Amino acid sequence: MTRLGVVLSGRGSNFLAIAAQVRAGAVPAEIAVVISNRADAPGLAAARELGLTAIALPSKGLDREAYDQQLIAALREHGVEWVILAGYMRILSAAFIRAFPSRILNIHPSLLPAFTGLDAQHQAFDYGVTITGCTVHFVDEHLDHGPIVMQAAVEVAASDTAETLSARILVEEHRIYSESIRRLLTTPWRIDGRRVVFET
Amino acid sequence: MTRLGVVLSGRGSNFLAIAAQVRAGAVPAEIAVVISNRADAPGLAAARELGLTAIALPSKGLDREAYDQQLIAALREHGVEWVILAGYMRILSAAFIRAFPSRILNIHPSLLPAFTGLDAQHQAFDYGVTITGCTVHFVDEHLDHGPIVMQAAVEVAASDTAETLSARILVEEHRIYSESIRRLLTTPWRIDGRRVVFET
Repeated sequence: MTRLGVVLSGRGSNFLAIAAQVRAGAVPAEIAVVISNRADAPGLAAARELGLTAIALPSKGLDREAYDQQLIAALREHGVEWVILAGYMRILSAAFIRAFPSRILNIHPSLLPAFTGLDAQHQAFDYGVTITGCTVHFVDEHLDHGPIVMQAAVEVAASDTAETLSARILVEEHRIYSESIRRLLTTPWRIDGRRVVFET
Repeated sequence: MTRLGVVLSGRGSNFLAIAAQVRAGAVPAEIAVVISNRADAPGLAAARELGLTAIALPSKGLDREAYDQQLIAALREHGVEWVILAGYMRILSAAFIRAFPSRILNIHPSLLPAFTGLDAQHQAFDYGVTITGCTVHFVDEHLDHGPIVMQAAVEVAASDTAETLSARILVEEHRIYSESIRRLLTTPWRIDGRRVVFET
């Protein structure tokens, strides 16, 4: 079984969705460890409740490089092969990216490359798009930028607020993050330029 | 009947799709004139074939401001209320935008704000998105930037080339451009910030 390491900063709702799919046998992997840079992250408490190994690794006061070395060490100690970011609110260092080449995934609540950065759902709503969505992508050294694994579209309804829109995007996030991991673990794939090409 | 003025530079396939919907009575408007900056534009010949008023207004050698004054005059001469850009390959001047405030529409073959400018379908394909599409928007003084009226999503298939993808996007372009005009002419709307809000 492929060993996943989840890294989060908050409630980790995408982590919980993935954990449910792992438990159901839909994603052929195990969650080897859940790590948070914030000791009070609700996602960490939820991980413990699920009986998973959960580690608080506080980032406060450490620069990015020093912290990332600790994070790499903790992930390796638990035999992590794939790093799953689930609401991790720090930028990863180049050293971290190199430590897990093409094995770090993130999810972003917009159809990238539109609306990178914070509050993507609000950005999209205020811009007035009628279609937005979410994107699972490999992580590279640029913000919300690596090769795209899967996207889902969500229509903006006339009655939407940014909040109701965010809620519907979240449903799609929960669906495609697990599905992306499942496909990457079960289907041959390669990266061609910056396109993720599944061989079947 | 609302009088539409179509402006194009090439084959004008979106113009033909709109003309068909006008003829079918689905868009409550008439095409008052079709103008091209290129005398040899196939769209101009097609307009004549359809019995529409078709005018070649060559732009060669004229600067943008001088040309746009001619274009404004020709549109006004034909009583045009809404300007429909259908593959018009020039940037409009500020004076043109001001001459038809919130009455100029364009269609762009991506989910704006992603992939502005030329060859948007190829840009999206090469970027590796799994969802792209097209956007009908009001034209302002910035490239592919005004308030969005309607968008349609198109999934990128594993077997796609940029060309097959472009063909599927074009089908959606033909659908949403007419539908956008129909909605704008039949439903109360306003622009709130940069969001187009339909009142029903």
